[in-house]
Amino acid sequence: MPAKAKIGILGASGYTGAELTRLLLRHPRVEIALLTADRRAGQPMRKVFPQFSPYELPTLVSLDGIDWRDAGLDLIFCALPHGTTQAVIQSIFAAKPDAKIVDLSADFRLRDVEAYARWYGHAHRAPELQQKAVYGLVEVYRRDIKQAQLVANPGCYTTCSQLAVLPLLKAKAIDTDEIVIDAKSGMTGAGRAAKEEMLFSEVSEGFNAYGVGHHRHMAEIDQEFSAAAGKGVIASFTPHLVPMNRGILATVYVRGNRGRAPTDLHAVLEKAYAKEVFVHLLPFGETPQTRHVRGSNMTFIGVANDRQPGRAIVIAALDNLTKGASGQAVQNMNLMLGFPEAMGLEQVALFP
Amino acid sequence: MPAKAKIGILGASGYTGAELTRLLLRHPRVEIALLTADRRAGQPMRKVFPQFSPYELPTLVSLDGIDWRDAGLDLIFCALPHGTTQAVIQSIFAAKPDAKIVDLSADFRLRDVEAYARWYGHAHRAPELQQKAVYGLVEVYRRDIKQAQLVANPGCYTTCSQLAVLPLLKAKAIDTDEIVIDAKSGMTGAGRAAKEEMLFSEVSEGFNAYGVGHHRHMAEIDQEFSAAAGKGVIASFTPHLVPMNRGILATVYVRGNRGRAPTDLHAVLEKAYAKEVFVHLLPFGETPQTRHVRGSNMTFIGVANDRQPGRAIVIAALDNLTKGASGQAVQNMNLMLGFPEAMGLEQVALFP
Amino acid sequence: MPAKAKIGILGASGYTGAELTRLLLRHPRVEIALLTADRRAGQPMRKVFPQFSPYELPTLVSLDGIDWRDAGLDLIFCALPHGTTQAVIQSIFAAKPDAKIVDLSADFRLRDVEAYARWYGHAHRAPELQQKAVYGLVEVYRRDIKQAQLVANPGCYTTCSQLAVLPLLKAKAIDTDEIVIDAKSGMTGAGRAAKEEMLFSEVSEGFNAYGVGHHRHMAEIDQEFSAAAGKGVIASFTPHLVPMNRGILATVYVRGNRGRAPTDLHAVLEKAYAKEVFVHLLPFGETPQTRHVRGSNMTFIGVANDRQPGRAIVIAALDNLTKGASGQAVQNMNLMLGFPEAMGLEQVALFP
Amino acid sequence: MPAKAKIGILGASGYTGAELTRLLLRHPRVEIALLTADRRAGQPMRKVFPQFSPYELPTLVSLDGIDWRDAGLDLIFCALPHGTTQAVIQSIFAAKPDAKIVDLSADFRLRDVEAYARWYGHAHRAPELQQKAVYGLVEVYRRDIKQAQLVANPGCYTTCSQLAVLPLLKAKAIDTDEIVIDAKSGMTGAGRAAKEEMLFSEVSEGFNAYGVGHHRHMAEIDQEFSAAAGKGVIASFTPHLVPMNRGILATVYVRGNRGRAPTDLHAVLEKAYAKEVFVHLLPFGETPQTRHVRGSNMTFIGVANDRQPGRAIVIAALDNLTKGASGQAVQNMNLMLGFPEAMGLEQVALFP
Repeated sequence: MPAKAKIGILGASGYTGAELTRLLLRHPRVEIALLTADRRAGQPMRKVFPQFSPYELPTLVSLDGIDWRDAGLDLIFCALPHGTTQAVIQSIFAAKPDAKIVDLSADFRLRDVEAYARWYGHAHRAPELQQKAVYGLVEVYRRDIKQAQLVANPGCYTTCSQLAVLPLLKAKAIDTDEIVIDAKSGMTGAGRAAKEEMLFSEVSEGFNAYGVGHHRHMAEIDQEFSAAAGKGVIASFTPHLVPMNRGILATVYVRGNRGRAPTDLHAVLEKAYAKEVFVHLLPFGETPQTRHVRGSNMTFIGVANDRQPGRAIVIAALDNLTKGASGQAVQNMNLMLGFPEAMGLEQVALFP
Repeated sequence: MPAKAKIGILGASGYTGAELTRLLLRHPRVEIALLTADRRAGQPMRKVFPQFSPYELPTLVSLDGIDWRDAGLDLIFCALPHGTTQAVIQSIFAAKPDAKIVDLSADFRLRDVEAYARWYGHAHRAPELQQKAVYGLVEVYRRDIKQAQLVANPGCYTTCSQLAVLPLLKAKAIDTDEIVIDAKSGMTGAGRAAKEEMLFSEVSEGFNAYGVGHHRHMAEIDQEFSAAAGKGVIASFTPHLVPMNRGILATVYVRGNRGRAPTDLHAVLEKAYAKEVFVHLLPFGETPQTRHVRGSNMTFIGVANDRQPGRAIVIAALDNLTKGASGQAVQNMNLMLGFPEAMGLEQVALFP
Repeated sequence: MPAKAKIGILGASGYTGAELTRLLLRHPRVEIALLTADRRAGQPMRKVFPQFSPYELPTLVSLDGIDWRDAGLDLIFCALPHGTTQAVIQSIFAAKPDAKIVDLSADFRLRDVEAYARWYGHAHRAPELQQKAVYGLVEVYRRDIKQAQLVANPGCYTTCSQLAVLPLLKAKAIDTDEIVIDAKSGMTGAGRAAKEEMLFSEVSEGFNAYGVGHHRHMAEIDQEFSAAAGKGVIASFTPHLVPMNRGILATVYVRGNRGRAPTDLHAVLEKAYAKEVFVHLLPFGETPQTRHVRGSNMTFIGVANDRQPGRAIVIAALDNLTKGASGQAVQNMNLMLGFPEAMGLEQVALFP
Repeated sequence: MPAKAKIGILGASGYTGAELTRLLLRHPRVEIALLTADRRAGQPMRKVFPQFSPYELPTLVSLDGIDWRDAGLDLIFCALPHGTTQAVIQSIFAAKPDAKIVDLSADFRLRDVEAYARWYGHAHRAPELQQKAVYGLVEVYRRDIKQAQLVANPGCYTTCSQLAVLPLLKAKAIDTDEIVIDAKSGMTGAGRAAKEEMLFSEVSEGFNAYGVGHHRHMAEIDQEFSAAAGKGVIASFTPHLVPMNRGILATVYVRGNRGRAPTDLHAVLEKAYAKEVFVHLLPFGETPQTRHVRGSNMTFIGVANDRQPGRAIVIAALDNLTKGASGQAVQNMNLMLGFPEAMGLEQVALFP
């Protein structure tokens, strides 16, 4: 039996940190060797997430003072907030040039550092690292990820939207001017920070859109849609909050071009995903539900006729914490460390 | 003090029946004189809806054998399932030609009986009554409703969609070929019938679209959108289910025509609803939440910029059981009986 | 028509403040003349609670600098956090000795200032006012409340537990050594402060006890149970959190003494509450559900046989924000201002 | 690699059937060879539970006409409704005397067939099989289960209550006359039958007790409590419904006898469960939450002081579909087939 790879999770007190911990605790080839959480440093993980109470895990430590060169980590997951991430990753590579990192923040997702500056309001602090970073949507960039040292794990909305649309853009099967993405997310997508608008009593028994017209995730969608289409694409995109913990569903309205019917679009997706283990295309006319992918790394996609001739509705569903964040990050890790891509990600969805 | 109007509710054991009862119990000018529920006939209302336990209400009776001529009812709410409704209303008018009825089913909403036959799969059974029926969207047909004997109360999805879009169509302010309505509803919209897919465990912690491409409510939307636009309009429309009890939110993607900006569309709505007590337009850029209209007869509407130049997002929210069904029905009753339009509908939303 | 009483709400940005606003907006004899919220001072109420967007309300102001003498308020609701409350109320009475105040905090509920010091860890800061304060459980202290200037509105858990048990203690019908109260509350009972453990994702899809063995509300229960029994009574009490917004249910296990059967206990409650408008006793064997009192000022109580001979189970349900807080506060206001006790509190529960 | 054991699931269209399928799909030593569901016979499992869409599973068949002798099944899970179960299991043993069966119904849990007749209203139809049946609470009957051919898998409420209390009774550490169990369950415990009272809109945003004083599960608790105590024990027991999918929490009020303090009771449990992989005792004073065991086979138990001297509160939490039903059934299967007890049950809880 080969030695287990030693893994660090930076920012383990958030939901993506907990999800990484859940998945890695049962991964046969890795060992969780480091957990950081600055505000909770010194506490056992069970104080922060009681579900881990029965398991052996390292005590939470602060990021400060870690000697990255001697830490002996084979791969690091970075689940830190935007802003701190760039500096932390810079310092890791400075100490250990051969480090391998999967970053779950948005900091390295935009290849164009000027687009970054425009969306985030400040110059990128590690543009040289941005050049090394590979965008971690496995189904598109699998080959590059295997060689990468720094992978920018995609956002949850964008993973869901891209898996629904990218093959259609690549095949030039849809009109690029009329893409409308109406997206809905569970509350874990908003993280674990204590904010009034995220309290149970503010969220339960209600539904709303937010960030209408100016959600930051759009930059990432623009980049990848344009790359797939070979020309500039801007889609309409509206995120909404659903009173549930996990799940994203994207309802995408498209128009087939050059006479392509909705069934033709279904055929394009079928071909694109025939060999993908984590993308499951439903029979034409069936559409997915978030509850059927909960806790799994699966994306379910369906295609149906719109009422307007020539238009189709493509709907994709995934678990924002798994395929939309930590599950995809483990998928990336598996590629970077030479493990089978699906290892540790075999969980069947938990329904009901 | 004038005598109270005597009111009957047919189909009182469903959710719209309960909502009518809740509202009418506190209406100063009416008295609930008749409650029917065939399966529960003979039972007190408190067995069917324990929240009414402290109040005096008539015992539930069967529809069969009611002598409509002698029942002494000033107005009847018909909250019966599709199909039985036409026959029941026919028999009421046969016995009492001057009856006043607000029908909450879909049976009399389509003016074109051929459209009805196409959508519902059988010929309309009371085409002569269809001619008398007035479509009960108060903000549009107020004048006709005051004279009507039979009002077809609009559906919940359609009320929400129409209030968001009709003034824009009337003003010829938007492109009629690119209207996308992405609608989301709480579970009470699906009624109280015991179906597996409506069980708590099937619904909670999940989100999905349904009836994609072929929801029956579209016929009603087509009719009213086309009437407003003065030409045939077909909008894309996808309904979704939210794990909450009450509320509908419609996210509508439109394109302003002849250079109209989103702020221009906002101005059109502002003018249209300046005097409406139950439609509240939010300041430009703000968008509504269903929780803020819960239990009230209010519709909140917001308009924001889309990312695509020339496009706007209009979002409307209402409570599907109140403004989307029983509240609007009481609003219709008030007009038909000559009461102030808002009487008994003053409840402030229950949040949280 | 008599002039409307002018009312102030201190701490209007919390849930009890919102509930007071909801109720008072529709109360025929009052006018909301002052709303305070220190952190949100200067903002319109609609920014803090968008459901009030359609209504005219005073802008939120800071407590500092209010001249209580000239403010012209007929009654003040104090919905401030524990600690600040005592000082604020002291300053109000100093400026305006004939002020009338209903305090929704716990600051004036314990008649024994030493018990207060023991439970809250510091000496009471206004012991002379404590002497004036009347405990505002209307069904018990109605006569005193009518004369009071300062009413200490009871807590939500304690209102629910007391209404279930007090008449049994007064009638000496149960064993005082074996009272077990297992209580469950919706999340609004925990207030609107942004705390991690109150986030939607921490609360949804789960259930737990908290504060086991040492909840502060117990002091209030001890005081009132002992007063009713005429001797010291300590009950077991465990609060739990339910993933819902509103509602408290208390399951109380008692043993009838001197041969009293559960039906005898039911008879005691029936007699005690025969004339109460806001306490509704269900037929023997039926037990209440929180959903059937949601948004109303009602308390539903049921009594059933335990499996153990001689023991009974008494279950009470109320809405923690209405009868458990703001509704009861308005009930107290009505008594203090000479209005009919139920005025403005007639809302029927919102179900579903 | 040894051949995989062939497994049948009878009644696969219910929630316990789905949970068995979820667990067995990832169990390294078994293969799902048969799935039955009479109403859904002929359909693929993905039509009944879409979460299984990506996996290969047998088509659902009817029970009728299965030749149990030739079916080649190494073990059968019986997740059928009460009533049919006895006849089906009888016919299986008649055809294949060496069959191994884990029954998830209540049909074989009561050793005393007269107690069965009293609680269920009819004579037991397979009393000779009842003699063979072993009660499948692994932590108590592990040794017998390894030899058993027919295991009666315990109920969810009873598993939770028993794990909290049995060691205390065996150690004669608590008063047997004053045990109060206040239990709360998620909705999946009520099964998948389409009933009005289980609809989302009837359940969400509310809380209630049910079956007060006469829940059938009490017979099972009586039997096992009495066996552990060595004398007749009757506990008070009240079940409640929580608006969540999964989870049971039992709050148990006990009185230590012969001077035993709550910490002594904690010590008794600590000793009893020191080697149990699926029972996790929290440090004294901490109490469990259902969300932290969701989807796992864990039971978390906590002990705390009651306010009344001499009394303690013991709280246990488990997932009703996993440890409370299908997970425990797989645990039983592992013992019966000679596999490691925890095999296939290693999933970490899914939180949030």
